[in-house]
Amino acid sequence: MQELRVGIVGAGAIGADHARRITERTSGAKVVAVVDPNEERAREVAAIAGGADVLTAVDALIATERVDAVMICSPGRFHEAALLPALQARLPIFCEKPLTPDSASGERVLEAEQRLDRPHIQVGFMRRFDAEYMRLRELVASADAGELLMIHAAHRNARPTNPEYVQQNLIDDSVVHEFDVLSWVAGSPVRSVTVRQGRRNSLSLPHLHEPILVLMELDNGVLVDVEMNVSAQFGYQVTTEAVFEKGVARIGQPSGLELWQEGAFRKAEHTYYDTRFAQAFDTEVQRWVNAVRDGRLVDGPNAWDGFQVALACEAGVEALRTGRTVDVRPATIPEFYAPRVSPASSTLS
Amino acid sequence: MQELRVGIVGAGAIGADHARRITERTSGAKVVAVVDPNEERAREVAAIAGGADVLTAVDALIATERVDAVMICSPGRFHEAALLPALQARLPIFCEKPLTPDSASGERVLEAEQRLDRPHIQVGFMRRFDAEYMRLRELVASADAGELLMIHAAHRNARPTNPEYVQQNLIDDSVVHEFDVLSWVAGSPVRSVTVRQGRRNSLSLPHLHEPILVLMELDNGVLVDVEMNVSAQFGYQVTTEAVFEKGVARIGQPSGLELWQEGAFRKAEHTYYDTRFAQAFDTEVQRWVNAVRDGRLVDGPNAWDGFQVALACEAGVEALRTGRTVDVRPATIPEFYAPRVSPASSTLS
Amino acid sequence: MQELRVGIVGAGAIGADHARRITERTSGAKVVAVVDPNEERAREVAAIAGGADVLTAVDALIATERVDAVMICSPGRFHEAALLPALQARLPIFCEKPLTPDSASGERVLEAEQRLDRPHIQVGFMRRFDAEYMRLRELVASADAGELLMIHAAHRNARPTNPEYVQQNLIDDSVVHEFDVLSWVAGSPVRSVTVRQGRRNSLSLPHLHEPILVLMELDNGVLVDVEMNVSAQFGYQVTTEAVFEKGVARIGQPSGLELWQEGAFRKAEHTYYDTRFAQAFDTEVQRWVNAVRDGRLVDGPNAWDGFQVALACEAGVEALRTGRTVDVRPATIPEFYAPRVSPASSTLS
Amino acid sequence: MQELRVGIVGAGAIGADHARRITERTSGAKVVAVVDPNEERAREVAAIAGGADVLTAVDALIATERVDAVMICSPGRFHEAALLPALQARLPIFCEKPLTPDSASGERVLEAEQRLDRPHIQVGFMRRFDAEYMRLRELVASADAGELLMIHAAHRNARPTNPEYVQQNLIDDSVVHEFDVLSWVAGSPVRSVTVRQGRRNSLSLPHLHEPILVLMELDNGVLVDVEMNVSAQFGYQVTTEAVFEKGVARIGQPSGLELWQEGAFRKAEHTYYDTRFAQAFDTEVQRWVNAVRDGRLVDGPNAWDGFQVALACEAGVEALRTGRTVDVRPATIPEFYAPRVSPASSTLS
Repeated sequence: MQELRVGIVGAGAIGADHARRITERTSGAKVVAVVDPNEERAREVAAIAGGADVLTAVDALIATERVDAVMICSPGRFHEAALLPALQARLPIFCEKPLTPDSASGERVLEAEQRLDRPHIQVGFMRRFDAEYMRLRELVASADAGELLMIHAAHRNARPTNPEYVQQNLIDDSVVHEFDVLSWVAGSPVRSVTVRQGRRNSLSLPHLHEPILVLMELDNGVLVDVEMNVSAQFGYQVTTEAVFEKGVARIGQPSGLELWQEGAFRKAEHTYYDTRFAQAFDTEVQRWVNAVRDGRLVDGPNAWDGFQVALACEAGVEALRTGRTVDVRPATIPEFYAPRVSPASSTLS
Repeated sequence: MQELRVGIVGAGAIGADHARRITERTSGAKVVAVVDPNEERAREVAAIAGGADVLTAVDALIATERVDAVMICSPGRFHEAALLPALQARLPIFCEKPLTPDSASGERVLEAEQRLDRPHIQVGFMRRFDAEYMRLRELVASADAGELLMIHAAHRNARPTNPEYVQQNLIDDSVVHEFDVLSWVAGSPVRSVTVRQGRRNSLSLPHLHEPILVLMELDNGVLVDVEMNVSAQFGYQVTTEAVFEKGVARIGQPSGLELWQEGAFRKAEHTYYDTRFAQAFDTEVQRWVNAVRDGRLVDGPNAWDGFQVALACEAGVEALRTGRTVDVRPATIPEFYAPRVSPASSTLS
Repeated sequence: MQELRVGIVGAGAIGADHARRITERTSGAKVVAVVDPNEERAREVAAIAGGADVLTAVDALIATERVDAVMICSPGRFHEAALLPALQARLPIFCEKPLTPDSASGERVLEAEQRLDRPHIQVGFMRRFDAEYMRLRELVASADAGELLMIHAAHRNARPTNPEYVQQNLIDDSVVHEFDVLSWVAGSPVRSVTVRQGRRNSLSLPHLHEPILVLMELDNGVLVDVEMNVSAQFGYQVTTEAVFEKGVARIGQPSGLELWQEGAFRKAEHTYYDTRFAQAFDTEVQRWVNAVRDGRLVDGPNAWDGFQVALACEAGVEALRTGRTVDVRPATIPEFYAPRVSPASSTLS
Repeated sequence: MQELRVGIVGAGAIGADHARRITERTSGAKVVAVVDPNEERAREVAAIAGGADVLTAVDALIATERVDAVMICSPGRFHEAALLPALQARLPIFCEKPLTPDSASGERVLEAEQRLDRPHIQVGFMRRFDAEYMRLRELVASADAGELLMIHAAHRNARPTNPEYVQQNLIDDSVVHEFDVLSWVAGSPVRSVTVRQGRRNSLSLPHLHEPILVLMELDNGVLVDVEMNVSAQFGYQVTTEAVFEKGVARIGQPSGLELWQEGAFRKAEHTYYDTRFAQAFDTEVQRWVNAVRDGRLVDGPNAWDGFQVALACEAGVEALRTGRTVDVRPATIPEFYAPRVSPASSTLS
């Protein structure tokens, strides 16, 4: 079996990260081309891969016919422009989250994909590949602790990822992960969203009012509360507590070396998402590479999952703006995307 | 200094418990009389105390002039009838929670108490004497982790305390504790209450729809969410997670002997409130006894605190019934009850 | 039942501590006299008790006939001189550890006590009253995890309790607790002791070479290793890990408020024995008071237990000096002290 | 850069495991041949790799000149016979532990390797690649908690790995890991070994007397105790507690999903080494592959490390047999193997 030849679109931080992953830590693929309008940046990422081709346009990449698959790592607003030609070229695609920034563009992508014989897009919600989330989902599916009733979640960043981070990003850049992964854990999509704003963290960026408390109701009646906090100062932390009929489960707790020093027992906490989800990112990409090589094309969240998250984000943003409970626009899953079958996957070829 | 002679009103479970506490584990007091309309039951509790007098009416107790102080341990709806004559007799009073079951009766008690020279009633919210809640309150007061922003709480019972437990008791018998202790920790009263009902635990009593999620906004803007769960099956658990500007603190986590057995690492969890708060109950009573003996009369939550909780309960019950956000009726603290001074106390003589 | 009138012999830190305990936190006793050659110091402790008599000699105390029981809190080398007259006066005695500093004086005390109708001395090994040690002993007794095979223990002080602390005190002042409590947990006395000295803590007192590793073999074959460390700097910690045939149990782990701050998850650790064993001290004294009041006289480790520990200490000190494995001098329990019956007790009246 | 062509010698469990690892989870290598006298077994492992060549003798493998490097996964007593021809062919070698079963054969291998220009052998002590051991080693090296003084370790298997496991294997198959990794963490080789046998686990194999307590003294004076337990029943657990001058660190504690159920708080514990050290195995092989591809050849424990462990095992086995403290035969590191430089490595090309 030949190594999969991958073209990376977007030479920012996440593009560089995936280039390093494929080159240094996962099996069965190599990066053969890097596309970025900023040629300098593309060259740097190509160097990580040991000398891939450097291109400045997606169309050029596809025209070369030298790639077997594409990873889209550009900012979300450029995703549609890369997804559509790649779909037309019938290339398997790994698309970083979000699928697209709004549901209208998402619908265009879904339409284009459905012209193919089967789903070709996997979306980069890496939390589904974290061992603890996987274990929690199994616990829900097994009903060993009874039915799932509630979820309490906290999503804490030490500080906003960049100074351009605005209030709406609390929903569409951050809670977006909970929309996806908690629905997946619970086996039920988001039905409505409410947002509560309380006391403001004075250490946050001046234009932000946070933390916020996001309440979701899932289709199966499960209530979810999420503390969304991007100025937690002390570190990076994503925790989930799932309340069942007969028990309570918790993931995301600190682990690793324990140290008694200076009057306290201490464990280091993560400071950024890259270490917290390091293993999840590797697993995600390895499973995608394997799926493409053996013809399944997708082994993880697909475009339909990405579209559902876009709908939940639209409701969340409106809930944030209005203070009201906002229903998520209902959407019926096309036959093309059904059925869900394996633990971390929602599609089969 | 003579031992304080205590009369216990109400010979149920909590009355018996306090009789045992005073007789066997705390210093400076003895139970000299037990009152209960059920003479048999009063006799049993009197026996715990090594032979106290047995009476069937509060008035008879007060008439004897043989007691220095009274503990009211009868059901809440009988509290007013015991509080008023005890106040008239100028006796120091320890009154189990709730002060009274509604705010109207509470106002009558406050009025009667204010005819005395200073507060005489301490209310039995024992959580304020739990070492972990005290430590959490200190952390808030110190601002070592910045300002308090949010509180996430869970109050889980293995099962309802009795088969007569009804939906409204989720608020007025259970969340009542959070109304008191979380306001005390945060240093701010409850401003409004919202209740969300999600998926029902099928193992609960047939007439109950729970767990519920109770949202409170405090006067200082702090948001509080409480999972109120009376059918958790696995045990008794009260946890609090406090989100600060620069850190997050958590109390109520499992402790004690750790056991690796049969493929798991395990710690026993509490099964009932009496072991979880055993030390808090002892401390509460010891501090009350000391306060009465040295003339302060109250060293803990006072009647005003009890009244505020009654107001919050009224809002909570309406929120549960209507599904709306309900504001707590505002109340201005009379000079008589101000100011708050010591960590676990809200009154000084 | 009258309150027990207690005379305290020795007005140092532990004497003051017990005076405060009896006066403020335990039921059924009061301190009526304090004896110390340093009258000033005796006066201070008497003040804690709200004005007890002040005396400068044990004999004077006994002659007054105003005490029902005696607590001996003087340094160990003065214990015999207080124990013998108190035994002659047939007074119940609570004697702080050690019973006496060596086995020869211990034998004289045992002889004097056996002239009475039953044991009158309880020895202050407070760890037997710690809830976690009690739970561990129950686990051994229940055989729920199979037979006990090994114990790993650590006894860590932030620093030596006083500048006069010498190398031998590692055994006779510190490991003395493990000799008692681990034998009690395992249900088997110490058979032999070996001491290993490794790398020295440069932060320790100049004349100390520690930490040391103390190995004990118990009569039932259980192997015990103890890290004895009196310069741990970070805090006070006593941990025990018990290896069973089917599981491993651990006690003494950090608990209480958890705090995420500055990149770490933290729990405060104890800094001194008084907080770590606060509850154990209270329980110990309360149970002794109760036993004296109801005629059992002893409800905890007795003089025979104290004597066995003295024998183990003698072996331990020789092992420390010689580097060899030293057998503990065997001793047959007199009928007078048999049998052991209740969880925390080795005697019955 | 071409993918590294690897030949696997030995098609048992660990050979199959490495074949799967290289094929499915690590980057830059592929398995092109599998050697085993049992052709059937070799064929099965070759199938895992997607159709590698099948051979029955090491010499045949080397003669083909189709491999760039060799992984030796056969039983220890066959290692020398594979190592010598591979060295003669100047092939980079990954050799599973032990290097060879005794020091005499180890010396022959060292001699042969020193005829080459630089070390070619990496030995499979995978614990050095576990993130927690790496972190602990950094803590020692940094002296942030002062000097290292003692190590307490426990190595617990649910049951012996196979029915042929004999008493001596407690040392040469199990403690062998602690000899390597704890010396590496402490930065000092083993100077002497003592073994204590206490109470026997009645659930162990009839011919085994265990658990045992292994005491080591390192050259720098650090004392180490290891509980070696191969019948722990409850699961697989490897823990290390390192005592420093100013603190205590602990690794190997349970982590992952936490579950409150049936009266207890629980975390799943590992049941076998493959999950406990899954990440360490992947990292180990990935780093070796990278080192071979970039010309360093070794990035981890080398043959000299393997030889030192063999010496410690010889002392350990004699200590087990005689009950005496046995010094490890001193050995001076040849210039060829010096110096140590990077955290997880002891060699540089």
